[in-house]
Amino acid sequence: MSRVYNFCAGPAALPTAVLEKASAEMLDWNGMGLSVMEMSHRSDEYVSIAQKAEQDLRDLLHIPSNYKVLFMQGGATAQFAMIPLNLLGDKKSADYINTGQWSAKAIKEASRYCDVKVVASSEDKNFSYAPTQSDLNLNPDAAYVHYTPNETIGGVAFDYIPETGDVPLVADFSSSILSEELDVSKFGMIYAGAQKNIGPAGLCIVIIREDLLGDARTETPTSMNYKVAADNDSMYNTPPTYSWYLAGLVFEWLKQQGGVKGIAVINDRKASKLYKYIDQSDFYANPVAVNNRSKMNVPFTLKNSDLDKAFLQGADKAGLLNLKGHRSVGGMRASIYNAVPEEAVDALIAYMDEFANSNS
Amino acid sequence: MSRVYNFCAGPAALPTAVLEKASAEMLDWNGMGLSVMEMSHRSDEYVSIAQKAEQDLRDLLHIPSNYKVLFMQGGATAQFAMIPLNLLGDKKSADYINTGQWSAKAIKEASRYCDVKVVASSEDKNFSYAPTQSDLNLNPDAAYVHYTPNETIGGVAFDYIPETGDVPLVADFSSSILSEELDVSKFGMIYAGAQKNIGPAGLCIVIIREDLLGDARTETPTSMNYKVAADNDSMYNTPPTYSWYLAGLVFEWLKQQGGVKGIAVINDRKASKLYKYIDQSDFYANPVAVNNRSKMNVPFTLKNSDLDKAFLQGADKAGLLNLKGHRSVGGMRASIYNAVPEEAVDALIAYMDEFANSNS
Repeated sequence: MSRVYNFCAGPAALPTAVLEKASAEMLDWNGMGLSVMEMSHRSDEYVSIAQKAEQDLRDLLHIPSNYKVLFMQGGATAQFAMIPLNLLGDKKSADYINTGQWSAKAIKEASRYCDVKVVASSEDKNFSYAPTQSDLNLNPDAAYVHYTPNETIGGVAFDYIPETGDVPLVADFSSSILSEELDVSKFGMIYAGAQKNIGPAGLCIVIIREDLLGDARTETPTSMNYKVAADNDSMYNTPPTYSWYLAGLVFEWLKQQGGVKGIAVINDRKASKLYKYIDQSDFYANPVAVNNRSKMNVPFTLKNSDLDKAFLQGADKAGLLNLKGHRSVGGMRASIYNAVPEEAVDALIAYMDEFANSNS
Repeated sequence: MSRVYNFCAGPAALPTAVLEKASAEMLDWNGMGLSVMEMSHRSDEYVSIAQKAEQDLRDLLHIPSNYKVLFMQGGATAQFAMIPLNLLGDKKSADYINTGQWSAKAIKEASRYCDVKVVASSEDKNFSYAPTQSDLNLNPDAAYVHYTPNETIGGVAFDYIPETGDVPLVADFSSSILSEELDVSKFGMIYAGAQKNIGPAGLCIVIIREDLLGDARTETPTSMNYKVAADNDSMYNTPPTYSWYLAGLVFEWLKQQGGVKGIAVINDRKASKLYKYIDQSDFYANPVAVNNRSKMNVPFTLKNSDLDKAFLQGADKAGLLNLKGHRSVGGMRASIYNAVPEEAVDALIAYMDEFANSNS
């Protein structure tokens, strides 16, 4: 068996050490004689696994005690509906910042439930930057302000946390949660589909300030009600137990890497060297404003897009997988989440350089 | 490592051969150098895994071509809302048969969206039987008729498929799907949370007749819209990829057991010998009407409930796990799904007999 370097945007690479542990424990967790996925979610053993995962996440992000952590089913797409359903209360509108495809999807779904006010957009420059604080035309009557701190497809990241006064700030951190330190107290709610920096697809983490619970609209499906999830420790119904367990293994692994602070240093180094290589090259280019470059998703184009196919074929052969850009934008994209090791980035740069030299 | 016999009602036992394969493939699927849970759901490799799982399920249940198979997130609880949201159309009411806790939950959630008419109930005898066809006061104006063919908690099963004329029949097969042959064409829709007879928690299979798609109410979250799921091969958003893969391994395994026909013979034998043992004993009892006894979930009580704790402790020591009845009913329950081998039932009967002899 040889493991490749996997630059997939999601479902994405997981730490090899986590997969090794999961493999070893698959048939027999902790001498119990059964797999975690065969355990009742109400058993003492499973509850201990679930609680440890939550506590480790709380430790990693220093989540204040007035925030609930929910382990929900579905990904960001389900949240796009849950957010207005749960947070509108008696308000009629919500503010959204549009910085690319994921914000746009959130906006589209929320528009089915309320008056969405797009308070800033970077569409004018093909979503290649993030609006600044002074660009935001915030509405004091909004139920909340929603934004996407890191756009997975465009590779655009906010370099600041929007200041929204008394209006709760809601953020889709699917592709950058746990990649660098974060002041959770600045948010009303944070959510993240697991399949990028947390674990397998099918799990979504919601971190929500307690005072925002309890105002769900009457048509909210019970399985989508944050208060019900919070009141039942995310076990109103059977949660995705195995994904939750794997998320816990990832959190444990992250603690071993020095926590978020430790991994952030590595992430900085990975992203810096890749952007530096791209910038010095006249063969490759990245279109994003320098201060808004994502450290997780690095899109790049080849000067001559006729070479795209050859680039990808060579990359596959070199064990560098899933570098094709999203079908909507083309080009390449290297997603370099926490679990993608620095050596993968080194190998990618070496390959890019070799390819450029052979094709210039 | 030694594997125990796991009688958990769900999440439940999985075939050891499936877990062995999953463990072996955890770090490297098919020589690709990555785990299935690290694959893009849009990659050729993952799509082939997903399609094979669907095809195997179609083969196993002989699903007619005018039915769509959806691999959705969440379990039965999410379906309890999705069903009225998707199937009411311009109707105002739906018929529900109440045979226990799971029907009751379905009724409670549906009541939030429509006028639920309980067309038959076995509450008069503590849910110890299933109403007969002539008990059903069906309404021709109902959008659909919902029932629970197998009540996991009460261990009550229908011994017939309700005849509902032109009104679509909707059934929660979470705890008995794939346990015996089934004429899918009699149903408008079948659904089943995976964590009993299919795979890990967090996946729900929906089998729905095509003409029932497309009438979702406007407030339906997009992630809950059957038509959207059907039109996108259950990949409108990232599906729970790893659970889907594991379900596929279970389907493969089931084919190796002779398919549903083959496993049904074993299931018959397992249930028969357990009920036979209970019936000849004056130490144990099962309260369910004989023709409605579930072949998947066998609840039983001890003559003297003061012995319950000792029974469970001894069972644990003997490697017979999760025999405690649901907290709402007490006593014991042995869930003997497809993946619970016949030897497990033999070992259980031997233990029950030994315990009865020592405590009579």
